[in-house]
Amino acid sequence: MADFAIGIDIGGTNTKFGVVDKNGHILSQDRLLTNKHDAVQDFIDELHEKLQPMIAVNGGPQNFTGIGIGAPNGNYYTGNIEYAANLKWRGIIPFAMMVSDKFGLKVKLTNDANAAAMGEMMYGCAKGMKHFIVITLGTGVGSGIVVDGKIVLGHDGFAGELGHTIIRPGGRMHKGTGIRGTLESYASATGVRETAIEMLTEHPHVESLLRDYSINDLITSQTVYECATKGDKIANDVFEFTGQILGEALANFVMFSSPEAIVLFGGLTKAGDLIMNPTRQAMEANLIQVFKNKVSLMFSELKEADAAILGASALVWE
Amino acid sequence: MADFAIGIDIGGTNTKFGVVDKNGHILSQDRLLTNKHDAVQDFIDELHEKLQPMIAVNGGPQNFTGIGIGAPNGNYYTGNIEYAANLKWRGIIPFAMMVSDKFGLKVKLTNDANAAAMGEMMYGCAKGMKHFIVITLGTGVGSGIVVDGKIVLGHDGFAGELGHTIIRPGGRMHKGTGIRGTLESYASATGVRETAIEMLTEHPHVESLLRDYSINDLITSQTVYECATKGDKIANDVFEFTGQILGEALANFVMFSSPEAIVLFGGLTKAGDLIMNPTRQAMEANLIQVFKNKVSLMFSELKEADAAILGASALVWE
Repeated sequence: MADFAIGIDIGGTNTKFGVVDKNGHILSQDRLLTNKHDAVQDFIDELHEKLQPMIAVNGGPQNFTGIGIGAPNGNYYTGNIEYAANLKWRGIIPFAMMVSDKFGLKVKLTNDANAAAMGEMMYGCAKGMKHFIVITLGTGVGSGIVVDGKIVLGHDGFAGELGHTIIRPGGRMHKGTGIRGTLESYASATGVRETAIEMLTEHPHVESLLRDYSINDLITSQTVYECATKGDKIANDVFEFTGQILGEALANFVMFSSPEAIVLFGGLTKAGDLIMNPTRQAMEANLIQVFKNKVSLMFSELKEADAAILGASALVWE
Repeated sequence: MADFAIGIDIGGTNTKFGVVDKNGHILSQDRLLTNKHDAVQDFIDELHEKLQPMIAVNGGPQNFTGIGIGAPNGNYYTGNIEYAANLKWRGIIPFAMMVSDKFGLKVKLTNDANAAAMGEMMYGCAKGMKHFIVITLGTGVGSGIVVDGKIVLGHDGFAGELGHTIIRPGGRMHKGTGIRGTLESYASATGVRETAIEMLTEHPHVESLLRDYSINDLITSQTVYECATKGDKIANDVFEFTGQILGEALANFVMFSSPEAIVLFGGLTKAGDLIMNPTRQAMEANLIQVFKNKVSLMFSELKEADAAILGASALVWE
């Protein structure tokens, strides 16, 4: 039979997992705190414990084609998680092999943004497309690039790190990488918060609802969004500025692989038109003629929790 | 038999063409001024007239697998040359079809930088590689991107316009595109000339051998190179500046497709270490850990005239 797959999405905070059928229906799902266990093996043991009943109720392992995993710094070629900055487990971890040993099933692993791109291609708004890019706008900025219907992995499996491309040379220092002016320093939830604080500091005499929030912890991309919808000027400027930079970066990506669409995914997309409009405008303004008004820029239509599991499971059907 | 191919490279000034065997030997070649004829058909007729004897001496058309053409704004999918800024022929020209009709041979066409990448993959320093990028540094900046052993064409055939990616937002205006701060405005022969003039103007009291040349016409990337080799400070600064920008852009490209190598090709590479050293340094400084000291940055080893013909002919064997 082999009609089911398991999808596992390992995030910095939560690990989501579930059983998925070939039509992209999630039959059952659960979650687990990623950093609950210091040892990787303990984490995999608990995963197995929670998935065991889901596998049993769906006819046992013989009904499962395999397990797909999306993980930060996951490498498709090696099946390893390598030096993931946001995970407790250090160094190079042969994660796919360990999971396969525990479950007795075939395992495919890739990075989380690539898994998101797989999910969009099989079940989301990139269905049927052969050339598109998914940009994940969350705490960080990730990307999954599809060319000729396949994820671009590069010669070592690490391709698609568009959050680390330079778009403001000499600009903000990225704490994780030490590189200045990269997209992630601006177009992430963290970047939006930082832009807001910068603007409040640079314009001390401009009134803003944001000044009612503590700079230490309460100014987040969410509060900036809420203030913007209430007409707050600085909050709106933050999204204009963020969209300008994101749009310029997207224009660069279009000139690389000429995709049919760019799908935006993740927390920051909740800002809707506030982020979409300036982004689209800046992207179009910086494209050469041959690309203008050709690329669909859209938000993912998949529910974030579902997308993660679906994307990971999609690796199995590839 | 079908052991031979014809390679045609259409440049802004010269069109080079020749007969190539499967081992990449050019058996005979010639050239023609691209803009000699106002009408495309007249141009193709003269091409045919000059190639006819070369075809005859190699056993006639039945010994030829086909014709490969590299052309500015050449589109592999359609076989058209579309809105090429540097050619006399305006609009959309069904060039591949016209050549095929005239010669009675199968024709494949792509843009000139993609043809250069094909040449490097079959006969040059990217032989055997599946992931690499060719950057052509001439009057303009072009690119051919190879992922999984195939040229990245994108959904419309226009992918790989890396010369038009933004690397100095708000910087120099590109006359052809109207976009500010793109790579081509800096890392081309034209860009080097412009940087030299800017530096001479900004530092009127710094002595420079370049001041012996007329700004109107004699300061070229070639004269800047010659002055730099004589130890001229401004001329050396020009290459430092150019390499810094090029290196940052290359880092961005690496983070997109994680290539094994980047091959630099074209006039500007004659500057050797003067351009290579600052470029490599800036590229490495802007790569995240996982890519550092992994990407070979090298100059093409093919002779420029040969490479154009070889690259175009390589399309035929694909």
